[in-house]
Amino acid sequence: MHYCVFLLLVPAVASPVYSLSFPNKVSPKVVDEISSYKGVANEIINLAVYGAAQNQSYNRLAKFTDTIGNRIAGSQNFERAVDYMLKELSDDGLDNVHSEPANVTHWVRGNESATMLAPRRYNIAMLGLGGSIATPPEGITAEVLVVHSFDELHNRSKEAKGKIVVFYEDYEGYGVSVAYRDFGAKETAMVGGVASLIRSVGPFSIHSPHTGWQDYDPKVKKVPTACITIEDAQMMARMAARGTKIVVNIKMEAKTLPPVQSRNTVAEIIGSKHPEQVVLVSGHLDSWDVGQGAMDDGGGAFISWEALSLVKQLGLRPKRTLRLVLWTGEEEGGLGGQAYFNAHKGNMSNFNIVMESDAGTFTPLGIQFTGSDAAYAIMEHIVQLLAPVNATQLSKGAEGTDIELWLRAGVPGGSLADDIDTYFWYHHSDGDTMTVQDPHQMNLCAAAWAVVSYILADMEDMLPR
Amino acid sequence: MHYCVFLLLVPAVASPVYSLSFPNKVSPKVVDEISSYKGVANEIINLAVYGAAQNQSYNRLAKFTDTIGNRIAGSQNFERAVDYMLKELSDDGLDNVHSEPANVTHWVRGNESATMLAPRRYNIAMLGLGGSIATPPEGITAEVLVVHSFDELHNRSKEAKGKIVVFYEDYEGYGVSVAYRDFGAKETAMVGGVASLIRSVGPFSIHSPHTGWQDYDPKVKKVPTACITIEDAQMMARMAARGTKIVVNIKMEAKTLPPVQSRNTVAEIIGSKHPEQVVLVSGHLDSWDVGQGAMDDGGGAFISWEALSLVKQLGLRPKRTLRLVLWTGEEEGGLGGQAYFNAHKGNMSNFNIVMESDAGTFTPLGIQFTGSDAAYAIMEHIVQLLAPVNATQLSKGAEGTDIELWLRAGVPGGSLADDIDTYFWYHHSDGDTMTVQDPHQMNLCAAAWAVVSYILADMEDMLPR
Repeated sequence: MHYCVFLLLVPAVASPVYSLSFPNKVSPKVVDEISSYKGVANEIINLAVYGAAQNQSYNRLAKFTDTIGNRIAGSQNFERAVDYMLKELSDDGLDNVHSEPANVTHWVRGNESATMLAPRRYNIAMLGLGGSIATPPEGITAEVLVVHSFDELHNRSKEAKGKIVVFYEDYEGYGVSVAYRDFGAKETAMVGGVASLIRSVGPFSIHSPHTGWQDYDPKVKKVPTACITIEDAQMMARMAARGTKIVVNIKMEAKTLPPVQSRNTVAEIIGSKHPEQVVLVSGHLDSWDVGQGAMDDGGGAFISWEALSLVKQLGLRPKRTLRLVLWTGEEEGGLGGQAYFNAHKGNMSNFNIVMESDAGTFTPLGIQFTGSDAAYAIMEHIVQLLAPVNATQLSKGAEGTDIELWLRAGVPGGSLADDIDTYFWYHHSDGDTMTVQDPHQMNLCAAAWAVVSYILADMEDMLPR
Repeated sequence: MHYCVFLLLVPAVASPVYSLSFPNKVSPKVVDEISSYKGVANEIINLAVYGAAQNQSYNRLAKFTDTIGNRIAGSQNFERAVDYMLKELSDDGLDNVHSEPANVTHWVRGNESATMLAPRRYNIAMLGLGGSIATPPEGITAEVLVVHSFDELHNRSKEAKGKIVVFYEDYEGYGVSVAYRDFGAKETAMVGGVASLIRSVGPFSIHSPHTGWQDYDPKVKKVPTACITIEDAQMMARMAARGTKIVVNIKMEAKTLPPVQSRNTVAEIIGSKHPEQVVLVSGHLDSWDVGQGAMDDGGGAFISWEALSLVKQLGLRPKRTLRLVLWTGEEEGGLGGQAYFNAHKGNMSNFNIVMESDAGTFTPLGIQFTGSDAAYAIMEHIVQLLAPVNATQLSKGAEGTDIELWLRAGVPGGSLADDIDTYFWYHHSDGDTMTVQDPHQMNLCAAAWAVVSYILADMEDMLPR
């Protein structure tokens, strides 16, 4: 999951005012229609959780990530991943398996290191942040200024000139604290700092740096920027509090190569009655260049495939087209999603809902939904059919970098809500491996994802906007 | 904490049979005597937890580990640590601050790597195991055989010849599963394997290998041996189960240099009435050559120092000598402890109790005790005075590599029982840093450790053997 402060500040689509006077009203006919799906919902759930498809999404994901490994957009390995998936989706008997072009940034990490030279020599665990520039070959050697916030940096701006700024921010939730990853380099450069290191954005660590995209401001000088572990940031904060002079050398070969034409990966179950109408389920196929990308977003991608697989394995064909999209370039800011939106926005009225799972596939809780109050009321009835997997919570505000443009344009959106207690322990780090994934949890997520997307693809009417 | 299977199999000293007919009998006089310490116990606890010494052991440990870093026995850094402590203990006003010689093994890791070459190229996170030999400079390249147990290795011994054996054992508790670290190389060599990699011995990982000592059998060929992460062991087990051929290159420069004369570090509060009698409190100053060695065993060493500091700061002087020993070479099998035992065993009758804290300084629970039933009964009364820190549990079986020889010789022993739920998440890995330590938990541990050791040093009579 890429998350930038910008996207978080975009409000969910405002509900039309008129709907406020008719809250939660769903016609008896629609209520009955939804109830009529109880049997098929249970069939999907039984297949995924107890039947022939048990552990299918986990096993497919394990084979995929073990075979391919991580796959940053722009890399040859990502394109190998696309080829792998095109073959798998075809072998699975899905319709209209193809890729669609999307230009992506091509950032390459290269060799990198951060070495504490004073008060003692120590190899600091680090990962350059996505988009960072390189240092000179000999690295940047400078004294460290440790600050706990942007406010402290501004108050101590005179001390920052020529220094490496270490941000040891409190973790106040990912959506808040990620600002230090996004803007740490820019803020450092604005006060004359020569490089920045941020405490990794997460609540817990076993000596793991967590990378992620960062955005330079085109009006501000670029300085190299990387993340370090919570432990090392804490150590340097203690040293600084004791008045100890800290000197660090940072070497980074990072570079941004020319953009690459990459691919979104698409497969469908073509609708029987309204093939032009679409329910889109998705996850992103790209990952960071560390770990296996099993959680972010292998899990989301593979339960989305599973939604189609389960429907197919039951011999079902919904009235509308059920479309899987596996995005490229999500981690660089939703580049695959942008290309897809631009290519398909002319057909916007035919998109019933766009769904993305990109916040883990741990124990599912329910669905996060963005849309009109009338649509929300219908969704409230649909999620009741997830009772057998205990995922009946409906909440407002779908999340997903790749579906964001559709939501802003007023298309209903859904995302999977799951138990993310430990998600940010592993996110964007070498800890994002298959060990984090649980076959049973993936079964439950896939079942919930399939039930909701199938019903929305098969109901008589599209969701009211 | 070093832990080898051998030590775990040594039973606690058997209670004399006669004591079974007089269980838990403590004379009213001794009960009264112990009760009379309630005031001083509360003074110690108040000083450590709420008073001027609050967070003292944490802050001292943070400064020490931030300044020195990790400190494997045999290294110059370990000797710097001893010099640092000798100065600190003198500055603290303790008596008879000195070091005592102890020869230690001098194992040096050097550069090392493990690279998966097939089915895809991947850098495996690894740490050589203590005592391992090197590979040839070009490394050892071989196909991998993954086994889940020694039994499986024996059953598949014909497949092992010329292979790198990967042990992906279940974690059945440290004391059981550490057998794979201890004997993995020996068992591998016995079936013709060329190197061994073990799943790190712990219940949880974020991509952290956990090193530790291993023992070659002098009658069996030595092969290089290292640990890998749970995640990578699991991945290779999945690949092997799919029938995928795995090829790995291991390069290790590890070497064992000639033994080094190292030092145990000693400080005392000399007893007022029986200065020749000793209550010994201890932790080991050496660590593995990863992380900060803050938990293993910085915490145990520094609460042991704190026990003397608290007594000193209150102006107390017990009847017997309260002696602090900070061991060298614990991780290589208790080498400092052995040297100390050999040097002092002639005075064994004067050792009232030997105590070691080497299993974390998390929330304290009480004391683990080895000794006669009569002594155990007295300890049951003493630990009641730890009620203000909620650490009144007494259990049988003191643990500590460095005190083991005394226990086997019949000297009473004590160790700190604490909440070790997460101890093996960090043990012997880069995750063993000050971030793991909690100031308040260390206050509680130091208070409990000081109360018990002070009372045992000050009571009228020594513990009955």
